[in-house]
Amino acid sequence: MSRMRLFINGGFGSRLRRFSSASFSLEKTADTQHSIQTRTLSTNMDRNYSLNFDNLNPNVKIMEYAVRGPIVIRANELKKELEMGAKKPFNEVITANIGDCHAMEQTPITYIRQLLSAVLNPRLIDDPSTPRDVKAKAKELLKACRGSVGCYTDSSGIELIRRHVVQYIEKRDGYPSRWENILLCGGASDGIKNLLKLFICPVDGKPPGIMIPIPQYPLYSATLAELGITQVGYYLNEETNWGLDVEELERAYEEQSKVCAPRAIVVINPGNPTGQVLTKENIQEIIKFSQRHNLFIFADEVYQHNVYAEGSQFHSFKKVLMEMGEPYSSMELASFMSCSKGYMGECGLRGGYVEVINMNPEVKTHYLKSVSAMLCSTVIGQICMDAIVNPPVEGDASYELYMKERTAVLDSLKLRAKMVVDAFNSFEGFSCNPVQGAMYAFPKISLPQKAIEAAAARNQHPDVFYAFELLENTGVCIVPGSGFGQKPGTFHFRTTILPQPEKLKGMLEKFRTFHLKFVDKYK
Amino acid sequence: MSRMRLFINGGFGSRLRRFSSASFSLEKTADTQHSIQTRTLSTNMDRNYSLNFDNLNPNVKIMEYAVRGPIVIRANELKKELEMGAKKPFNEVITANIGDCHAMEQTPITYIRQLLSAVLNPRLIDDPSTPRDVKAKAKELLKACRGSVGCYTDSSGIELIRRHVVQYIEKRDGYPSRWENILLCGGASDGIKNLLKLFICPVDGKPPGIMIPIPQYPLYSATLAELGITQVGYYLNEETNWGLDVEELERAYEEQSKVCAPRAIVVINPGNPTGQVLTKENIQEIIKFSQRHNLFIFADEVYQHNVYAEGSQFHSFKKVLMEMGEPYSSMELASFMSCSKGYMGECGLRGGYVEVINMNPEVKTHYLKSVSAMLCSTVIGQICMDAIVNPPVEGDASYELYMKERTAVLDSLKLRAKMVVDAFNSFEGFSCNPVQGAMYAFPKISLPQKAIEAAAARNQHPDVFYAFELLENTGVCIVPGSGFGQKPGTFHFRTTILPQPEKLKGMLEKFRTFHLKFVDKYK
Repeated sequence: MSRMRLFINGGFGSRLRRFSSASFSLEKTADTQHSIQTRTLSTNMDRNYSLNFDNLNPNVKIMEYAVRGPIVIRANELKKELEMGAKKPFNEVITANIGDCHAMEQTPITYIRQLLSAVLNPRLIDDPSTPRDVKAKAKELLKACRGSVGCYTDSSGIELIRRHVVQYIEKRDGYPSRWENILLCGGASDGIKNLLKLFICPVDGKPPGIMIPIPQYPLYSATLAELGITQVGYYLNEETNWGLDVEELERAYEEQSKVCAPRAIVVINPGNPTGQVLTKENIQEIIKFSQRHNLFIFADEVYQHNVYAEGSQFHSFKKVLMEMGEPYSSMELASFMSCSKGYMGECGLRGGYVEVINMNPEVKTHYLKSVSAMLCSTVIGQICMDAIVNPPVEGDASYELYMKERTAVLDSLKLRAKMVVDAFNSFEGFSCNPVQGAMYAFPKISLPQKAIEAAAARNQHPDVFYAFELLENTGVCIVPGSGFGQKPGTFHFRTTILPQPEKLKGMLEKFRTFHLKFVDKYK
Repeated sequence: MSRMRLFINGGFGSRLRRFSSASFSLEKTADTQHSIQTRTLSTNMDRNYSLNFDNLNPNVKIMEYAVRGPIVIRANELKKELEMGAKKPFNEVITANIGDCHAMEQTPITYIRQLLSAVLNPRLIDDPSTPRDVKAKAKELLKACRGSVGCYTDSSGIELIRRHVVQYIEKRDGYPSRWENILLCGGASDGIKNLLKLFICPVDGKPPGIMIPIPQYPLYSATLAELGITQVGYYLNEETNWGLDVEELERAYEEQSKVCAPRAIVVINPGNPTGQVLTKENIQEIIKFSQRHNLFIFADEVYQHNVYAEGSQFHSFKKVLMEMGEPYSSMELASFMSCSKGYMGECGLRGGYVEVINMNPEVKTHYLKSVSAMLCSTVIGQICMDAIVNPPVEGDASYELYMKERTAVLDSLKLRAKMVVDAFNSFEGFSCNPVQGAMYAFPKISLPQKAIEAAAARNQHPDVFYAFELLENTGVCIVPGSGFGQKPGTFHFRTTILPQPEKLKGMLEKFRTFHLKFVDKYK
C-alpha cells in the first residue's frame, strides 16, 4: 500500500511534514502518496527542473487543508466510479465534509439572485417581472460601481456597500461603526489571509505566533503554515460544550511564549467545527485575557446568522468589547463575515467583509496599500454582501418572499442540527455536544482497541481509518477530527448538518448501520 | 508640504523603503505622507498597539503599487470636489491610469452578460428573450457546478470550463493542452501571485530572485516585495520598440546572480505598460536564454486579444516553445490569461486562468494543495472565462451580435491606439513607440531643466511632478513612468487608450494645451 510506504520511508516523510506542538494529524494524504509516486517518476526521468521539491517554498510543502484532503479526493473518485456504472454498497456519495449549502440542494434566496442578475444584465431592470425594490437597488448599485459590474472598484470595495455594512453592524450591536473600517473581500478566507500576513515579523528575536483554537477550521493552520507563523493552539473544553477556559488560554500562551511571540488570537464563534455559541461571559473573559497579553483579536463570526439552540444568542466581539468600556473598547479587533454561510449559502460567489477597529493608523495605511495590488474583490461577491446586509424590509415588494425563504432555511437547519445530535448521541460510543450554531457536528467517538490496531497496521490515524471505512461502505464523506485538531487520545469527526432532512435521515441511518457493524467487527 | 517632510526626515523615509538595484520610484506616496501624519498622531496618543509600525511585516511596508498610488488618490479627491461643486479648470476627471474598459464607457458584450445572468437566475433560461445557445450553455454550466453557482467548485476550477480552455489553447496554438494543467483563478493577478510564492526558497544560500522587465506592470514589483523575493530587473529596449535584448538579459542575470539566485523570468506580451507585441524571433531568443539558465517562464499574455498594428501578431510562448522542440518544449512555463482585458474588459468579475506546463509533478501536487485552502475562485469569474474561451460560433443564435460587438471594440481600440501615438509624437519633446497591442501608450518625454528643478524643490520625481501638474490643470490622471520603472535619467508616463474616441480626442487636446504651457513655463 502506498499509504504504508510513506511511513516506512520515514526520512522522506519527515521532510514533507513538520510536527509542531499543535500539529495533530497523523494520516498521510493522497497528495503525499501522489508525491512519492511522482517523485520516483521525476527521479527516474532525471529532469533538471527549475522548480523542484528541494527548492520549493518549504512553507507550502508543510501546509495542509483537511477539508479538501485525501478523503475528499477519494469521495470524488467514488462519485466518478458510480457515474461509470461501478457497483458499490451505496448509490450516491454524500459530501458531508464541507459547508456547501447549495451543493446540498439548499435553494438560493430569490431576492439575491434577482438583484445579481439585474446588475449583470441591466435590461432586466426594466423587466416587469423584476420587483420594484430590486429595480431600485440594482440602479443604485450600478451607479455606485460606475455603471457596470465589469469595472474595478476601490480595493477595499464599493463605498455604498461598505456604508450598508456599517448600518447592518450598528443595528446588530447598537454601537457606531465607520465605513472606512470595512473592507470587502473575496470570501472571509481572503480577508483573514490578508490580515494574518501583516503579523509576519519577529518580535524580540522570537518568531511571531498566533493563537488558534483546537479544534479549529483548517484555513487557520494552513494559512499560518504558509506564512511561516507559529501556531499556538489552545484546546476548547469539550466538557463545557467547547467553551474557552482562560486557564487553558494562559497555559498555551505561557508554554508557547518560550518559542514564539504570540501576537493575536483567533476565536471562531459560532464554532467551526464545534458548533458552540459562546456566552457573553466567556467572550468577556477572552477579551480580558487578550487585553492582558496585548493580543490582536480575530473574531471569525461568519456563522452569526446560524444560531439554533434555545437560549443561545450571538454576541459579536465588537459589541461585548464596547460594552466593557476602556481599556477594552480600544483594543484591536477584526471581525469577519461571509456570503457563504448563514441562510444564503452563496459560497461560489466569494463575498465577505472584515471590520477592523482600533487599528494603528499607520499600519492601516500599509494594510490598505497591500490589498490594492490585487485591485479589488469580485463585484458580484460585493453586491451579494450588499444583499445580505441590506435586505428587503417590511413594505418592500420582495420582503415577504425573502422572509419566507430565509426563515425556511434557518428553521430547517435548526431541525437538522437537533436531528444529527440526537442520532449521534444514540450511537454506542458516540458523545456529541449540541449544535448550538454554525452547520457542523463534531462528535467524540470511542473506538475499539482492535480498530485502533487495525488503523495502526495501515499507518492511519484511527479516526481517518474510521472515516475511510465509512466512506467506502456508505458513500458518506466526513472529515476526521485529526484534520481539525483534538486532544491526544480522543477521536472525533466533523459532519455538516446540510443534507436536506430526508437525505439526512437516510444518511444517519446508514451511519448507524455502519457503526454497529464496525463496532461488532473490531470489538 | 508634507511631501517634503518625508525627504527631510530621511531616517524614517529609509525605513519605509528599501532601494533595491532594480528599485526606481523616487516619489513619496500619499500613503507614506499619511503615515507620517498618523505616526505623529499615534506617538502622541502613546497607545500600546499590538500591531504597530515596528512589528509590522517589513515586506508589506516596502511594497508599492503605482497604478493605485498617490496620483489616483488625488484624482479621486478631485472627483469628489467636483461633485461638491468646486470650481476647477476642468469639469471632469479622466482616469487614464488604469486598464478599466467599462469605467471608460465600453459596453459589456451582450452574450457574456446574458449567460451570467441566466446561470445566476435560472428562471431566465426559460425566458423567450434568452437566445437558444445561451440557454443551452447556461444549462450545461449549471450542471457542471452542481446546480448552483453558489456551490464551491474544485479549487482549480470547474472541470468543464478547464476543458473549454484547453480547446481554446489548442485552437490558438495547434499544440495539445491538458485540462489538468489549467487552473482557473480570480483574475490573472491571483494566479500570478499563487505561482510566484512557490519560489520563496533560498538556493545555494542565496535569496530567490525573479527577472522582470523594466518598465513592468507593478503587480510584479509589489508582489515580489511582499513575498521577499529579489527583483531582478532587465531593461526593455525602447529603441527597438521595447524589445528584449539578450545581452541585457544576460547583464541583469550576471549582475544579480551575485546577490540572489534568479529562478524565473516574467515576460509581458503584449506589453504593459509598453504596448509592444514581441516577434517570434524575440520570443525564441528569450526561451533560449531561459533554457540556458534553467529559468521558469512566466508568460503574462493577458492582452492576447489586443493586437492592433499591421504586421504584428500574437505568438504564445507555449506555441513557440513547442515549435522549437527539445530541450525547449519540456521547459517549465506558465501562461496567464484574464477576463479583464481583451474585447470583454470584465475587470470587476475577477476571472482568469493559468496554464502550467512541464511542472515537476511533485511540485504540482503541493501547488494544487496550496490553492485549495482558499477553496475556489469566484464561479461567476470562472463562467465569464468560459464565455471567452468558448464563445458563440457561426450558426449560434448569439453569434452575429457577439461578433459585431467584439469587432467594434477591437476596431475602436485599434483606432484609438493610433490616435494616441500620433498625437503624442506631434508634441514637442515627446517620443512614443507604436501601441502594437495591449491598451497603453508609454511615451518618453523630455522635460525642461527648470521643470526638473521645480520637481526637486518639491522632492518629487520629475515625471511625478509632471503628472500631478497635468492632473491639477486638466483632470487627466496618468501614471508616472517611475511607477513602472525606466532607465535612469529618462521620463515617461503611462496612459490608457481607453477613453471613447470623442473623449479621447478631447483629452489629447487638453494634454497638448497643458504641455505647451508647461514647456513654456519652465523653458
